[in-house]
Amino acid sequence: MMKLYFAKGTCALASHIALEEASAEYSTVRINFAIHEQRSPEYLAINPKGRVPSLVTERGTLTETPAMLAFIAQSFPRARLAPLDDPFRFAEVQAFNSYLCSTVHVAHAHRMRGTRWADDPSAIEAMKRKVPDSVGSCFELIESKMLQGPWVMGESFTICDPYLFTIAQWLEADGIDPARFPKVKAHRSRVAERPAVRKAVEAELD
Amino acid sequence: MMKLYFAKGTCALASHIALEEASAEYSTVRINFAIHEQRSPEYLAINPKGRVPSLVTERGTLTETPAMLAFIAQSFPRARLAPLDDPFRFAEVQAFNSYLCSTVHVAHAHRMRGTRWADDPSAIEAMKRKVPDSVGSCFELIESKMLQGPWVMGESFTICDPYLFTIAQWLEADGIDPARFPKVKAHRSRVAERPAVRKAVEAELD
Repeated sequence: MMKLYFAKGTCALASHIALEEASAEYSTVRINFAIHEQRSPEYLAINPKGRVPSLVTERGTLTETPAMLAFIAQSFPRARLAPLDDPFRFAEVQAFNSYLCSTVHVAHAHRMRGTRWADDPSAIEAMKRKVPDSVGSCFELIESKMLQGPWVMGESFTICDPYLFTIAQWLEADGIDPARFPKVKAHRSRVAERPAVRKAVEAELD
Repeated sequence: MMKLYFAKGTCALASHIALEEASAEYSTVRINFAIHEQRSPEYLAINPKGRVPSLVTERGTLTETPAMLAFIAQSFPRARLAPLDDPFRFAEVQAFNSYLCSTVHVAHAHRMRGTRWADDPSAIEAMKRKVPDSVGSCFELIESKMLQGPWVMGESFTICDPYLFTIAQWLEADGIDPARFPKVKAHRSRVAERPAVRKAVEAELD
């Protein structure tokens, strides 16, 4: 049985939802960022990056949300969470998730994790000030060019949907009014209604 | 025939090498960052993100290096550029590439692209100062935990190798002595000797 290490309010929710959507057998372990549990020797032995999520499988441990989402889709093909038989369509799914990971999540991270990229406190404050603009620009692109509707890739729910849903949870805290992005906002509500999503979200609230 | 849009000295080299390794039929188009060609209306019509690489295929345009590398591996299975029949091993390949994309490349980008994340000139200078430390920490992890040798994933050359090779080109300019990372340095030399790599590198120098 797989074991997902997550922390509240993080991108681990995307993989959590995907495991639920896939009807996978899995357990979860919460890592408490408030006490820096992600830097504990025990957790660093699981994931030397000191980040979440991590997915422990019988073959070994996987990290990095886009890789984990593709793994879940490929491991549970009956759930049809990605166009597995079409390399071009699969690449479109992966490109969307890679953009969320390397551009959108990174822009957002400058609000809370500025010490990764500068030591000067005033620089860290300057990064925080730019987040509404930088994250907002990403969502403008998602709204106008990427989100096909009703799901990210069109008619089929894929591993793009829980990932966009997860990152779109952070809009308000990033200083952005979701009303600016009606398609994203409607997508967020649509995803939230799915039984698998409710289950994963509620499990992380416990 | 596929068409790769690249710019000199960018991560597009990884996909360029992968296309060569796959013996793909493709052409290349150079985008000149010096005259901001990536922001031209013509290029934004191809890739609204205004970044490279872009890969124009007969089905449409792909972006994002990890997605493009997986697409090339899946489209040319005879080249054996990824463990396509093993979702777990494929996920390990993807996790490595996702780390390069979302953590290593992002750390590096704070040297030249700080305006993405702050407006204050002193904050942008503070970001530049941190790059040797932040990129250095990434390469410590790659050296000690990730790079199996002789190739990233062990005995088989995969889509991880051109990507690590590409990002490792930037070490000196990022203020890092590659001698700190003997495995990475040897890997960089090993990849550079491959005929497909020489061909792609030389084509970008023209």
